Amino acid sequence: MLDVPPDLLAITAETRARLAGFPCASPTLLGAYDGYGLVQTGTTLSLVVRQDAPSAFAPLIDHTRLVAATTATDIDRLTNEAATHGFASVCVSPFWVERAASALAGTRIRVGTVVGFPLGASTTRSKAFETAEAVASGANEIDVVIALGAVKAGDWNTVLDDLRAVRSAAEEATMKVILETCLLSDEEKRRACNIAREANANFVKTSTGFASAGATVEDVALLRHTVGFDLGVKASGGIRTTRQALDLIFAGASRLGLSGSVGVISP
Amino acid sequence: MLDVPPDLLAITAETRARLAGFPCASPTLLGAYDGYGLVQTGTTLSLVVRQDAPSAFAPLIDHTRLVAATTATDIDRLTNEAATHGFASVCVSPFWVERAASALAGTRIRVGTVVGFPLGASTTRSKAFETAEAVASGANEIDVVIALGAVKAGDWNTVLDDLRAVRSAAEEATMKVILETCLLSDEEKRRACNIAREANANFVKTSTGFASAGATVEDVALLRHTVGFDLGVKASGGIRTTRQALDLIFAGASRLGLSGSVGVISP
Repeated sequence: MLDVPPDLLAITAETRARLAGFPCASPTLLGAYDGYGLVQTGTTLSLVVRQDAPSAFAPLIDHTRLVAATTATDIDRLTNEAATHGFASVCVSPFWVERAASALAGTRIRVGTVVGFPLGASTTRSKAFETAEAVASGANEIDVVIALGAVKAGDWNTVLDDLRAVRSAAEEATMKVILETCLLSDEEKRRACNIAREANANFVKTSTGFASAGATVEDVALLRHTVGFDLGVKASGGIRTTRQALDLIFAGASRLGLSGSVGVISP
Repeated sequence: MLDVPPDLLAITAETRARLAGFPCASPTLLGAYDGYGLVQTGTTLSLVVRQDAPSAFAPLIDHTRLVAATTATDIDRLTNEAATHGFASVCVSPFWVERAASALAGTRIRVGTVVGFPLGASTTRSKAFETAEAVASGANEIDVVIALGAVKAGDWNTVLDDLRAVRSAAEEATMKVILETCLLSDEEKRRACNIAREANANFVKTSTGFASAGATVEDVALLRHTVGFDLGVKASGGIRTTRQALDLIFAGASRLGLSGSVGVISP
């Protein structure tokens, strides 16, 4: 085992926990930070830079299908692909949680859904209701859009109360707070990260994919710098190439949300 | 009073009910169908074609602000403009219903909100919860996105059950069913209209404004042809010019949803 920087070990704790006992015969990228990646092969950890085989980061991907025209056939393909490639999870609308959870029962693939999505303009009570229902239906990852109106008003108490209500309803589920970074100033992004941590979120997440822009390397680095290694950072929105995915991972993303996942992990 | 076609009187019933007792010193377009418009001046009705002053159709407009970056300032401007120009309603996200209802208390301007918006992929129980909460907070118009996944699967029982749950939660509020026409075949649009009527909706509505296309003259005509005069037809999404608005009204729209309302009604 190499001399791995403590920061890098911390960032990969969540990924390693998820992978515990997972057969790692082929090299698997556990996480990355500041230009370094941590790869597990069997029980051996090694450091790599940038040019690792893209399929190694499949376990960092939330395989996502949220567009309005989604059909049952799309969901079935999504869950099949997730199982085949070993993605972290599927991310689907609440309407499809039961179907996805049923398809993935007995696998290691987690089922994620979105709350208050994509406008972040639901009421707190609606978000909490939506969360509780999703968890009861089998979701174990909740990606909630922050209360954007309150963020823009600087009403951080409301933002915090909103997230706490979702946290409570989410029970043991992983909670990711979508900031919609393209709408926020850097100062708002930092405040939002701190509020997400205060609400015991597990991740901050850049984007819904439905606004004017998605994840950027700069925003991922800003988020990672702000949350340190207490929380995960999920990059999402507009990720379409292997190069983009690697750039975001090496900027500090510990999870990626994308739709074209199969293409992106193919060499 | 002119010899007004019965169809035209029927289509305008909802608008006239809303305008009852409203001072109509200036000509007001009550509704339109098949190239004709019905204008009320005082207690006199008259038929017009196409070139009526655009300000006359202010009472047909749902003055709308739904983008994620909406602030309290935006909502206050929206409600002020609605009161100034006599729009039918404001249409805001659930997060803003209380503020809008408070600002418009004592006026004739109605408060509308959106449910399961814009993806139509919330669960039925979440939609019903969101609806009940909005009504309790002062909303009297509910624009709900149809269960698009079930529509695309041809699972019309699920579509109907979903809308009935919202209808029940909406109590006396006006219920508009958003079809997201750009994602549907003509046959799906017709089936969706019939299901909306079966669920006792008050309107069918073309679009969320968040998909690839908005209202078209062809779709508005198709919806009006399908629902006859039992329901209203709301055209929405991408309406930016006076000419577009008039074209949609004369194709059969009895309500328009738009954001740039003040510009559109200005000659």
